[in-house]
Amino acid sequence: MVRRSGNRPLPSLLYAILDPAQAEGRPWDFILHALLEGGARVIQLRAKELAAKDFLELATTARAVTRPAGCLLIVNDRVDIALACEADGVHLGQEDLPLSVARRLMGKQRLIGISTHDLGQAQEAERGGADYIGFGPVFGTFTTNTGYTSRGIESLREICQAVSIPVVAIGGISEANLAEAWEAGAHAAAMISDLMRADDDVAKKVRRILALRK
Amino acid sequence: MVRRSGNRPLPSLLYAILDPAQAEGRPWDFILHALLEGGARVIQLRAKELAAKDFLELATTARAVTRPAGCLLIVNDRVDIALACEADGVHLGQEDLPLSVARRLMGKQRLIGISTHDLGQAQEAERGGADYIGFGPVFGTFTTNTGYTSRGIESLREICQAVSIPVVAIGGISEANLAEAWEAGAHAAAMISDLMRADDDVAKKVRRILALRK
Repeated sequence: MVRRSGNRPLPSLLYAILDPAQAEGRPWDFILHALLEGGARVIQLRAKELAAKDFLELATTARAVTRPAGCLLIVNDRVDIALACEADGVHLGQEDLPLSVARRLMGKQRLIGISTHDLGQAQEAERGGADYIGFGPVFGTFTTNTGYTSRGIESLREICQAVSIPVVAIGGISEANLAEAWEAGAHAAAMISDLMRADDDVAKKVRRILALRK
Repeated sequence: MVRRSGNRPLPSLLYAILDPAQAEGRPWDFILHALLEGGARVIQLRAKELAAKDFLELATTARAVTRPAGCLLIVNDRVDIALACEADGVHLGQEDLPLSVARRLMGKQRLIGISTHDLGQAQEAERGGADYIGFGPVFGTFTTNTGYTSRGIESLREICQAVSIPVVAIGGISEANLAEAWEAGAHAAAMISDLMRADDDVAKKVRRILALRK
């Protein structure tokens, strides 16, 4: 088994994903600040629609405010952008650069998370030295058409028992159901839509979520 | 002025661009081998439509055969893939990672080329330490809708006089007009469509082109 970095534990409970394309007209940095104000301790920045130049610009801005806030910054998909903005890690899908290649480029000090959709992928990511995995979609999701059907809470439970690295539950997670994901053994629950599209106060929402397990 | 790497001169005359999406049904590696057989000394690999994983796979294959052939390999757009496959360089558009960031990640030993479309962009790339620039589209192009109108041969001449780094003419270059680009001062002419879509033998075509200036 490839040794993973291990020295930067992934914060638990909430794994916030910030996607400017999903901000529904609100400024993305308004949401970023609200997440930090609410106490988010890890934020993944996702911007599949943006040119690399613009993605890096967002990432650099996010890095400047997440660092003093003590919040980890994870860049989605792009190893070069993660390196360029000095992110704490990168999150990779099954179609992105392979884990072994990303580890060589990122070094051992940065986190690498891998999106997984079944037991085989989860175990492969663990063997390959991933610092954590995403698993899902757990519930139906409104965020993107991932091409995968919902895995359900029992599959999540199975994955959490099968691997010893942190599992981030993803896909259709909302304030209403995240306790189910935690209960099934997820280290954290990823939230996009329910955070980004929140009609209510994002900072308050984050605070409420984190207070559930205090 | 930022010092550019300088120690790996860009081969002159022909800058072949290999884009599997433009191969019109022929296997991309068939074209790759034909380019090498014909004597191509620099190949840029472009695969905008592919997932990173698949792009890296092509790039790794291309690296394995270009190296023993003494042909430089340049990866389009993606710094991380260029690093991962140990390419000789990366080629970046105006919407990709900025030159300064790419240089930091790529180091001084690898080439960085920048797509430019006017004098200001060309001079900025030179000042920023680019090893070479692409300039175009010189003629009408069938390859992609770049969003730029044809610059014409006189603009190419102006750019070649204004900068001291190698200029690669790009856009609508074919066997029929590449001598015009050389005559205007281009260090090399980039060819995609006319190579990729060639009805005739690709290796012979490359040999014919390189023989024009022997």
